Amino acid sequence: MRAKWSELDMIALFSGRTGAVDTEGLIKGIGDDCAIFTGLGQRHWLVTTDILIERVHFDRSWHPPSLLGRKSIAVNLSDIAAMGGTPHYALVSIALPEQIERDWVAQWSAGAADMLEEFGCTLIGGDTVKGKDLTFNIVILGSAAEGETILRSTAGAEENIYVSGGLGFAAAGLEICRNPEQFKSFTKNELEPLINKHLDPMPRVHLGEILAASGMVSAMQDISDGIATDLAHICTQSSVGAVVEEGLLPGASALQGVCRTLNCEVVELQVSGGEDYELLFTIKQGKDEDLLALLRAQGGGQVYRVGRTVGGDGVRLLSGGRSVDIAYQGFQHTGERG
Amino acid sequence: MRAKWSELDMIALFSGRTGAVDTEGLIKGIGDDCAIFTGLGQRHWLVTTDILIERVHFDRSWHPPSLLGRKSIAVNLSDIAAMGGTPHYALVSIALPEQIERDWVAQWSAGAADMLEEFGCTLIGGDTVKGKDLTFNIVILGSAAEGETILRSTAGAEENIYVSGGLGFAAAGLEICRNPEQFKSFTKNELEPLINKHLDPMPRVHLGEILAASGMVSAMQDISDGIATDLAHICTQSSVGAVVEEGLLPGASALQGVCRTLNCEVVELQVSGGEDYELLFTIKQGKDEDLLALLRAQGGGQVYRVGRTVGGDGVRLLSGGRSVDIAYQGFQHTGERG
Repeated sequence: MRAKWSELDMIALFSGRTGAVDTEGLIKGIGDDCAIFTGLGQRHWLVTTDILIERVHFDRSWHPPSLLGRKSIAVNLSDIAAMGGTPHYALVSIALPEQIERDWVAQWSAGAADMLEEFGCTLIGGDTVKGKDLTFNIVILGSAAEGETILRSTAGAEENIYVSGGLGFAAAGLEICRNPEQFKSFTKNELEPLINKHLDPMPRVHLGEILAASGMVSAMQDISDGIATDLAHICTQSSVGAVVEEGLLPGASALQGVCRTLNCEVVELQVSGGEDYELLFTIKQGKDEDLLALLRAQGGGQVYRVGRTVGGDGVRLLSGGRSVDIAYQGFQHTGERG
Repeated sequence: MRAKWSELDMIALFSGRTGAVDTEGLIKGIGDDCAIFTGLGQRHWLVTTDILIERVHFDRSWHPPSLLGRKSIAVNLSDIAAMGGTPHYALVSIALPEQIERDWVAQWSAGAADMLEEFGCTLIGGDTVKGKDLTFNIVILGSAAEGETILRSTAGAEENIYVSGGLGFAAAGLEICRNPEQFKSFTKNELEPLINKHLDPMPRVHLGEILAASGMVSAMQDISDGIATDLAHICTQSSVGAVVEEGLLPGASALQGVCRTLNCEVVELQVSGGEDYELLFTIKQGKDEDLLALLRAQGGGQVYRVGRTVGGDGVRLLSGGRSVDIAYQGFQHTGERG
């Protein structure tokens, strides 16, 4: 269509930082009608895309541009992580309103370039246009060894369910950013882990790679809409049910004060809070100990058992002796989901 | 990030028509965190992306949704054609305003599905979100035999320059759609070729494949911003100059009446009118006759010699005995370019 990013646009927007870390298979990057890259022997390709729109998916009034640049890339890297893949290439389309400050865009680009570099990812294409709403569409291409990708549809019954970090943190962080006045009495240590999770989430790429290579994980996805919804995807696609125990959900203590101020229950944020970008996965029967030992040995980071798959269907939460159906009860109160 | 298109969204939006024509290497399509596909032996991968925004790139008041769906895919297929590639997979991100009619979206999707099917392309992913402006981001993945992709940067001096069809037609069609009242005295036969070129351009994929396989083309791109700009890209990247002859530009007679009404010169639309999506290419020295014979034999369609590359730089138009520099003089009067 219209001319692709020229080297000149590139230098202007990304200060020449298109990344040269992973250029092994790259024949032609930015500057022609298409980018060209080679196959990777027996490895499979992965591709994912997300579109982010101002006032729908982010708010410039509190989101520093460099962190938003990082997050725009991170949320797509998280999809690669959720398959157990390794990221390689990115395409970035940007629609810029006329009144946007050049410096804001430069900082966004610097943040995006940082995140791409951190994960060895090369920017190989994109499109820049005028638009009324500030809009970013990111594509990440990655790869995984043949037979090592982890789908959502392959969980079995009677398997333990794990997550890679605290749940509900990003949702709490969003509320704090929206109404900072409400949280003036809190300490920096109380608020920062929550705010950081909203502003600057880290995709669990390294953990995903270890889990995929282990052969011991049966199903996986990332937590973007809250475990109630994301676990329901795994259950529906795998034809199993799941039981999650409230007492096992990690990070509750970090949420207690904030939830009192928000007048909501901790467990509500934990099961239906979106955008944590932690990994959610099931371990094949009898492999828990081996996998946890492997993670310790390879530095995969802490993971937490939160429940178990069962025969049947649905996602149930065990809470105070009661069992409640929570399947697909997403992050309703923000109006942020498309 | 957020959940990807479920099979359910898919059925709703694309009526299940994600295309099954080219599934040879497809391991996993829509419905997981990423799509998964295999390598294609010795073939190289091509990837391109474009973002289209309402009132910047299209106008719903005159563009029928099914034709806009076709065009959204076509403009990306044209980039694959411009490398000499074969399209395989598509990712489609859509931001939908709340007030948009369900039926409009269904017709857009049907048109997009038609165009994908026509070119053997499978929809493997995407994202659907709410947005204030109707926005489409399309990604096409294609392939080409190793060593057969045709870049912009490899034209030589003293080579003939060709285009694959009339120039300025889409720009004229846009003006007709904008002010149909002005053209009431014209016949349907006079207006239709121009309007169709604006509403429903056909990507020259088959021609691109023949040109790439021939080994006789030195450089190529598609005409999206007008030959003055697009030929300047080839010249700049190849370190050559070019001379285009007004008398050789195809399709002038179809533009004469319309240009009188628009009070502009035919050659102005021909050199700076955008969105024709014809191929623009240079033939290696001494290969013109062989290539033209090959195109006749393989049904590649008519092509037209419009000028010649020269040593030096710049793009000059020979017009009425004068030589004028036209490099990068794009399609200025529409305000449509990003």
